[in-house]
Amino acid sequence: MNVENVHLSEDRNAVEIIDQTLLPGNKRVLRCATLQQCHEAIVSLRVRGAPAIGIFAGYALYVLAKQLPSADPNTFLQQLHSQADFLDSARPTAVNLHHALDRMLKTAKSNISLSRAALLETLRLEAETIQREDIDMNRTISEYGLSLLRPGCGILTHCNAGPLATSLYGTALGPILLGQERGYSFHVYADETRPLLQGARLTAYELQEAGVDVTLICDSMASVVMAQGRIQACLVGCDRIAANGDTANKIGTSGLAILAKHYGIPFYVLGPSTTIDLATPSGADIEIEQRDGSEIVEKYFANRQAPEGVPCYNPAFDVTPASMISAIITERGIFRYPYHEVFEQTFSS
Amino acid sequence: MNVENVHLSEDRNAVEIIDQTLLPGNKRVLRCATLQQCHEAIVSLRVRGAPAIGIFAGYALYVLAKQLPSADPNTFLQQLHSQADFLDSARPTAVNLHHALDRMLKTAKSNISLSRAALLETLRLEAETIQREDIDMNRTISEYGLSLLRPGCGILTHCNAGPLATSLYGTALGPILLGQERGYSFHVYADETRPLLQGARLTAYELQEAGVDVTLICDSMASVVMAQGRIQACLVGCDRIAANGDTANKIGTSGLAILAKHYGIPFYVLGPSTTIDLATPSGADIEIEQRDGSEIVEKYFANRQAPEGVPCYNPAFDVTPASMISAIITERGIFRYPYHEVFEQTFSS
Repeated sequence: MNVENVHLSEDRNAVEIIDQTLLPGNKRVLRCATLQQCHEAIVSLRVRGAPAIGIFAGYALYVLAKQLPSADPNTFLQQLHSQADFLDSARPTAVNLHHALDRMLKTAKSNISLSRAALLETLRLEAETIQREDIDMNRTISEYGLSLLRPGCGILTHCNAGPLATSLYGTALGPILLGQERGYSFHVYADETRPLLQGARLTAYELQEAGVDVTLICDSMASVVMAQGRIQACLVGCDRIAANGDTANKIGTSGLAILAKHYGIPFYVLGPSTTIDLATPSGADIEIEQRDGSEIVEKYFANRQAPEGVPCYNPAFDVTPASMISAIITERGIFRYPYHEVFEQTFSS
Repeated sequence: MNVENVHLSEDRNAVEIIDQTLLPGNKRVLRCATLQQCHEAIVSLRVRGAPAIGIFAGYALYVLAKQLPSADPNTFLQQLHSQADFLDSARPTAVNLHHALDRMLKTAKSNISLSRAALLETLRLEAETIQREDIDMNRTISEYGLSLLRPGCGILTHCNAGPLATSLYGTALGPILLGQERGYSFHVYADETRPLLQGARLTAYELQEAGVDVTLICDSMASVVMAQGRIQACLVGCDRIAANGDTANKIGTSGLAILAKHYGIPFYVLGPSTTIDLATPSGADIEIEQRDGSEIVEKYFANRQAPEGVPCYNPAFDVTPASMISAIITERGIFRYPYHEVFEQTFSS
């Protein structure tokens, strides 16, 4: 991809994204220009992946700030705050959304004495900085991740943390795509990731586009491919990492980590260090988003695939205990269990 | 259900089944009268579940025997053999199909001196016996299984081994349905069981019909409901059990067993003792059926949910190591690891 998935429109009045809900069948660019459109794009997972949501939120707040009526600075800040709060409510688990909005609000506050035009330009540059930092982080994460992998090895992925979900190579897919450029010849098994099939729709798509040898499996087949010796490493992304290393990521991650441990396969979590939230002591303190049961029984299907009225439980994420994670790979280095002390030393400021 | 799912038609010229591929939306009775129809019904999973396939095969061979031209006994037996071989080829993993066909062929052979009418009547009675034995076995299995469960406990199920897949209460669902009659108030989590959704389409349907408190989850959510303390027992069926207790069952079973062990939750395999195949030393000797990748990326979906051309790996079953199974429950009793010796003592004849 020449242009990053999340970017400002040419007229700078909207954020543009590839609508991920329509992939792989339909590669449509979606223009988000209003608060409602931006909020809906996050809620409906048209833009998804914790880093991509953060980048999106940065640009969105810039676009929305431009539309605010010329009022006094306090009113301006108040209105910007309300908009940020509404965007922040779109998804509760990923920390990047909150971080990016927070950065944008702080930038606005500390530059509020500037002219409106200069203030807006500062906000735009801050959003760009968020994205550029993400690109740099992903490059470093990919290098660190690749250092743990041998050419020709088998890799299992879950959900999607590739270019669409982040920037550049992605986080979990970063080492794979970087390795592909360097002739590593990985054999990747992408699990489909029910209920929303990000593995089938997005990871398989991104890896196939890059020429990687990728095979699609159902989530329930992970144990078999591990037992058969096809997998030498699991790579997953993350939505929030607690101070003790407990990691919230797409539902199904914790089960894979337990299987990997059983089979003696390293299980790696990859993400920018902004995903580490020292204010969250452990996984028990991470709020887990509950989504509608229709995603399980209706969405994507030609017909409803369960009897009417049957209750569904649909948590969007789960928490993988730190002890199940072989290493957490960020742009600041490769960390190994126990995580608490080294996180505190490295990231508390 | 008043009538068993698999039964002879009133005119005794066909086997009738509820087409399980159309459930839960459409409860249609399918009439299978020819070899092609019977074979197709098994291959396409219109009739599925190892015991149900066995019962179906018994009646099918009776129906097909009636249609054979009146030839000399040897030719009759030879033709019956060919038909049985073809039916047997429909699904390689479950042992019940092979057993039932074998029983019918042996019955034909040892009664070949009878008049054709009497021979056919003997075959019909043998097929009925297979079914009646299955009903009796399932009643006993259900009682044994229920003895391991406490009222009000949480139960996780995988795939479907209920009345549709067997007879009466079913095997894995047997203790749940029997307990429901006795006011046990179980809380059941049925995983959907990708790719063919037997959990969503059939287990949720059967349990809802019986008034059981059932909640549907995706396969990848098992780890979460276990971690949350919602599950006190896992109940699964089986397609073939090796002499050492290794168990072939629907893909995903081995992963659940590993998770259950990790969380300290008992993992129970339920099935008729005919599923135990002493001629198969271990799970490594069980042939695993590979099915088409279109089941993963196209079947049930309104649109294809993966890029064109991406390879899929779609094993229909996996093998759960005996050491991961807390108990194997048959009509002959409750067996616990290690299984090899007690199986040998109990079942070799």
